[in-house]
Amino acid sequence: MDDILQVSPIADIFTDFPDKFGLPRQSGRASALLGTIVFRPEYRAQEALRGLDEFSHIWLLFGFSQHFLKGWHPTVRPPKLGGNERTGVFASRSPFRPNPLGLSCVKLEEIRPSDANGPILIVSGVDMVSATPIYDIKPYITYADSHPEAVSGFAARHSKDRLAVRFADGIQEKIRPDKMQGLIQCLQDDPRPSYHTDDARIYHMRFSEYDIGFFISDGVVTVTCADEL
Amino acid sequence: MDDILQVSPIADIFTDFPDKFGLPRQSGRASALLGTIVFRPEYRAQEALRGLDEFSHIWLLFGFSQHFLKGWHPTVRPPKLGGNERTGVFASRSPFRPNPLGLSCVKLEEIRPSDANGPILIVSGVDMVSATPIYDIKPYITYADSHPEAVSGFAARHSKDRLAVRFADGIQEKIRPDKMQGLIQCLQDDPRPSYHTDDARIYHMRFSEYDIGFFISDGVVTVTCADEL
Repeated sequence: MDDILQVSPIADIFTDFPDKFGLPRQSGRASALLGTIVFRPEYRAQEALRGLDEFSHIWLLFGFSQHFLKGWHPTVRPPKLGGNERTGVFASRSPFRPNPLGLSCVKLEEIRPSDANGPILIVSGVDMVSATPIYDIKPYITYADSHPEAVSGFAARHSKDRLAVRFADGIQEKIRPDKMQGLIQCLQDDPRPSYHTDDARIYHMRFSEYDIGFFISDGVVTVTCADEL
Repeated sequence: MDDILQVSPIADIFTDFPDKFGLPRQSGRASALLGTIVFRPEYRAQEALRGLDEFSHIWLLFGFSQHFLKGWHPTVRPPKLGGNERTGVFASRSPFRPNPLGLSCVKLEEIRPSDANGPILIVSGVDMVSATPIYDIKPYITYADSHPEAVSGFAARHSKDRLAVRFADGIQEKIRPDKMQGLIQCLQDDPRPSYHTDDARIYHMRFSEYDIGFFISDGVVTVTCADEL
């Protein structure tokens, strides 16, 4: 087709998630999770960011990089529906889409001026794996983008459910204090695949420099290990 | 580069704007403006929309098709800044971007079931020219996407300014009633390029099946012609 569009990354975002497992299911769910956006060499112009400091939030259009080759299906099983019910791909934010483009709103915490890697953006509320390519950054324009009255159907269900999180003896002390809040927010949202309800199972997720082990029973997440990778 | 991503349109949207001139500057500015989304043949699966009727708003990721070949510059002149001041391209929603991808939130008015052209979506609050290619449709998830507290810097200035609109004798009757409100909303937002303040000049915009002529003086838009094209 002659209307294929080629897009190239303008930047990459680095986060605490080397893998998909444990990622927040939407942006903003784990408000303490930071990301560092590093521009590709040809976009390292401080002036391309002029005025961005007037905005509190930005949009990231990014690529679901680990999913490029997996194709798509007209229906998906969103975790919000328990993983069994199917919904249309265009009624979901699933990464398995015809065009693997993601959209996330993040909070702009800091613009670090130029250094050897060009200007760096520090953002919070991220929901992407580390080294995800970013195709566009746009300011969040409240009057056009914010619709608090919007109805979100099944995506709204359970959006306020949060699990309790506790740590086995001696585990909490192993984790850097600046990583604690983001980790707890991710665990509160139940990172398990929806169809898993095996209380005995210990799951592992890589988070920042740690291998985090946990199990979930009776609505409580218990962290059993936090070993440096 | 090996990380170029190729995206293909999944659909096209048809609106009342054959040209860029007169387009609302953001989605939702002209809430009465309707658009019709027709899927490309390979995406005409009713099940790909299953559950979409539970959402009041959707995101459209689209291509700034008329701008593909014009390239980009690190700074742009947003109309909100009067057209003279420059701001960074990543601090703007300008179509002249490294990757010409647009992002608009529109209201989902109706999902028409399959016919010869597959399911059709009727949306309102559009801000794109007719026949714009759409690369993705995502549901608007209020808890992740709506940030009424967000600060939008210069984009928020003048966002509530609206001009008065009046019609020269006999003009109003020439326009289909169902097109009137959308037209008025577009004109209220002052479609002139920001650096134009020539009271005597008559501007023409193509809107639906009409050639609309107007001039603006003392904060009032006067529509002087509405001829069928």
